[in-house]
Formats: sequence, structure tokens, C-alpha cells
Amino acid sequence: MDYDLATMRALAREVLGGERPVAIGVSFGGPVDAVTGTVRLSYHVPGWENVPLRQMLEAEFDAPTSVDNDANVAALGEHRFGAGRGTDSLLYVTVSTGVGGGWILHGRIWRGAGGMAGEIGHTVVDPDGPACVCGKRGCLERLASGPYIAQRACEWLEESPGRGHVLRALVGYDLEAVTAQLVSRAAAQGDELAWEALQVAAWALGVGIGNAANLMDPQRFVLGGGVTKAGERFWEVIRRVAHETALPQLQFDVVPAALGDDAPLWGAVALARECLREGPTGGSG
Amino acid sequence: MDYDLATMRALAREVLGGERPVAIGVSFGGPVDAVTGTVRLSYHVPGWENVPLRQMLEAEFDAPTSVDNDANVAALGEHRFGAGRGTDSLLYVTVSTGVGGGWILHGRIWRGAGGMAGEIGHTVVDPDGPACVCGKRGCLERLASGPYIAQRACEWLEESPGRGHVLRALVGYDLEAVTAQLVSRAAAQGDELAWEALQVAAWALGVGIGNAANLMDPQRFVLGGGVTKAGERFWEVIRRVAHETALPQLQFDVVPAALGDDAPLWGAVALARECLREGPTGGSG
Repeated sequence: MDYDLATMRALAREVLGGERPVAIGVSFGGPVDAVTGTVRLSYHVPGWENVPLRQMLEAEFDAPTSVDNDANVAALGEHRFGAGRGTDSLLYVTVSTGVGGGWILHGRIWRGAGGMAGEIGHTVVDPDGPACVCGKRGCLERLASGPYIAQRACEWLEESPGRGHVLRALVGYDLEAVTAQLVSRAAAQGDELAWEALQVAAWALGVGIGNAANLMDPQRFVLGGGVTKAGERFWEVIRRVAHETALPQLQFDVVPAALGDDAPLWGAVALARECLREGPTGGSG
Repeated sequence: MDYDLATMRALAREVLGGERPVAIGVSFGGPVDAVTGTVRLSYHVPGWENVPLRQMLEAEFDAPTSVDNDANVAALGEHRFGAGRGTDSLLYVTVSTGVGGGWILHGRIWRGAGGMAGEIGHTVVDPDGPACVCGKRGCLERLASGPYIAQRACEWLEESPGRGHVLRALVGYDLEAVTAQLVSRAAAQGDELAWEALQVAAWALGVGIGNAANLMDPQRFVLGGGVTKAGERFWEVIRRVAHETALPQLQFDVVPAALGDDAPLWGAVALARECLREGPTGGSG
């Protein structure tokens, strides 16, 4: 922990070049108590359990600070500077190694009672689906995230020796080299097995998004992350299934994120701005 | 239409007994554009298409008026006067002939971009489930509403002549007389077929609620409507499945509604109060 924080401090000092920041916004890759600005844990790096990050940064830099998890901050970034500009409500969904999300309602981050809102990746879209790490079956993440798209394509290649020639050639006949990106590429080159593996992900995203539309009626869904670069056919399935799943009276669009990997950075800028205007938690609980 | 409105006017005049109301809140049994106070239609009574109800009542009674659909208004009623008091966020779910819902977020009705939020009844909980009137398969309403609980029990009675003796006796051996209420009563008296028909509904409610918890992280779910009177065993299944479906970090409770059929009336009182404070739409879009 100390090492990570020391590195963070040193990098921040270097970026600032001696200047004092007016406000600080932080996008953290893990669950955060945004009200107190305390990092609960990191799923990737040990030593980040219950770190009072806001307090530490405010003490270090003498500037009002706001900390939130990366999905919420990316949602805010897309809302203020990207594909969500001009909307009052949106759900940002990121589809890469996992599936996460963040809500903007009335133009503000909706965090939920315990800061856990937006977990569309663990909504169940198929109760008879494959087992997820979380203990349930058929979670959206289990069907739509990159590693599971690759795993599904792999299993099908093993089961059907006569199929997936394009994908097999792309990975040099080494099934361990299959990635979601290569599945997308093979699908674009006409590989039917690869397309079917992708289609399951697009279907699951469509059901999850349609269900969220029925529940919340947001104006827009903004989708980012590597998996969403799988091509127009992939998007067509998502949009069709989402609108089939939602009641016909619901009007919403499903659009690609505009800021790519920079969405959390832009969101942190917006967070810092809100911090100046309304105090550290942005007043949106 | 004219007849209905004339009746409504006459009833209102009678209730008022010559006094002028300070504000009016209306709970309408169908979709409403709460921003303009226009009734879109009634599913039960013809002639209510695009009726500018707020405008008409304001002209008639010279009092600020707010109109919303009954699920939203009942949610507000439970929040202000019933099982949701003291919470910041809740989803009210009514389970009777249909399954509907209304959100309270930050203590206010969340209506969504087009006033359609809260339609948990048409979230898909089992894509391989039976066909719903809406055109999809396995909607929560198709599995959990009263008429479908009765239909399911009926079908099973027809398929399995050796089962469901208690239920058969309760309906006088006339399968057309099966209702959800009698299914509940038979289940309470130990009829296993009846309990299994109910359990499907409880399971579906649990999945729908758990998915909504993952998406929105509200503090509480308040469940009302006739079907929710099916007994403690029914509630145990809902709560267990809801918490299994939600991520373990989520904390919420699932409680019975406190106001019964009066929830929309109390909600209309709250709506009228908000109207006085903040203008006709209650400022919550």
C-alpha cells in the first residue's frame, strides 16, 4: 500500500510541477464509498482496503477532492464531454474483461444507497445459463465479457473440429491464443462459429439493456470497452434485442462511447469541477 | 369520455361540499405524462386517450393540480406514510392482476425520460419462459401475476390427475374457479401442487428484485397487491432469491406494503402537498 500511494503522490507532484491544484477528481478502479471518499478495495492490487483516499489527498494537496469508482466517473465523463452530452439520464456500460456500468440521472451520478448502483454485469439474463464467478448462472458479464467470448469460441472449436476455419487460422491453430478481439476479426471475415460466439454476447447485452430500460426509462445507453468494437452487425443485434425486450412505449438509443479509455479522465475533470461547486460528494449521494 | 369526466366532477364537488381545494393530487390507473398532467390512455376504460386532466381540473377548481400513474403515486404514498418512511430510495412493486412498479430516488418519484420507469413487470427473468401478452417470453408479470398463477395451477391440475387434492376440493372440482387466492389458500393447507405454482411466482419476483438491486442499489423494496398476501413461505422465497441474485455487497430489505389499497390515495395527498411546494410536476421530471 505504502509503495502505491508513494508512487501516486510522486506522479501527482510531477504532473503539477509545483502548482497547487484548485480541486482534485479521482477515478478509482474498484468500489469506493463516494460520500466519505474511502476506497473499499481494489480487485487488482492488494493493499487498498479501506484507504481514506479523499482525506489523504486533501491533506497532501490542500484542495477539495472527490473520489468515485471508474464506471461512475466514466459515465460522468461521457455525459459531460462525450456521447451523453445533452441528455438528462443515461446508463454507461463498459464491456471489456468485465461488464460494469454507471448511471446519470437528472444529470448527476446515481450511486445508490451503498454506492453499488450500475452493476448491470451481474444482472441475470439467462437463469439456465453458464455458472458465473459470483455464484449465479447466466449473468450478463458471464455471457458478454471478452474473456468469456473467447472461452465460448474455444469450447466450440474443440467440440466442432469442422468449424471455425478462419478463427483457427488467425490464432495459428493454437486455441489458447483465442481472444475476443480475434473472435471479432474472424467474424468480420465470415467465420460463422466466431459470429455465433459474439452473437450470444450481443443478445445478452440487448436483454440486459432492455430490462434496464423497462426499469428506469433513461434517454440513452452509452456502450464502451473493447468488446463493443466488434462491428456494426454486433451493434445491430444489441439494438434489436434491447428494443424487443423493452416495452414498445419506451424510447431510447444505444450509442457507442465517444471518449474511449479517456472517459474516466474526463469524468475526473467533471468530478473536480462539481467538487468546487458543491463540495466533495457532488451533492448526489 | 364525457360521462366519466362528468361523474368525476360530480363526485369531486360532492366530496368538497362547497369548499375550494388548496391543491389537487390525482392517481390515475394508466400511463400519464406527469410533466403536462395529460392522461395518455386507460387500459380499462375507453375514452381516456390524451385527456389533459391537469388542465381541466385546474380550470374547474382553480387549484394547482398534479397527476401521475397509480404505481408512481402508490410508491410516493408508501414512502411518505407507509412502509417506505425514512428511506431515501425504494422500488414499490404491486403484484395483483398485473405487476407494476414505481421508483422513489432521493425521496422523489423517478419517472424516467418518457414517464415509463418502474415497469419491472416486463423485465425478462426467464428468456425460455412462457409467452407474455407483450410479445416476449418469461416476463416477471407472466410468471408472478395472479391470473397467471391461477392459469399455471390449472394447467398442472389438468396434466396431473393424481395431484392437487386440496386445491381441487377448494374449487369444488371446477377448474375454472381456480384463482391465485385459492392457490394460496390450498398451499397454506399443504397442497404441494399449489405451493409449486406459487413458488414460480416467488422465484420470478426474487430474480426481478435482485436484478433491480444490482442496477439501482435502492434501500428498500416495498411489495403490495393481493398476490403478496400468499404467506410467510412465499416471502421467504422472494427474499432468498432476491439476495442470491443481488451481489453480496448489496444491502436492501424486502417488506410488505403498509397502506394496502389506500397507497394511491395517500400518495395523491403527498402529490398535492408537493404541488403546493414546488409546482405541478413536483420538480422531479
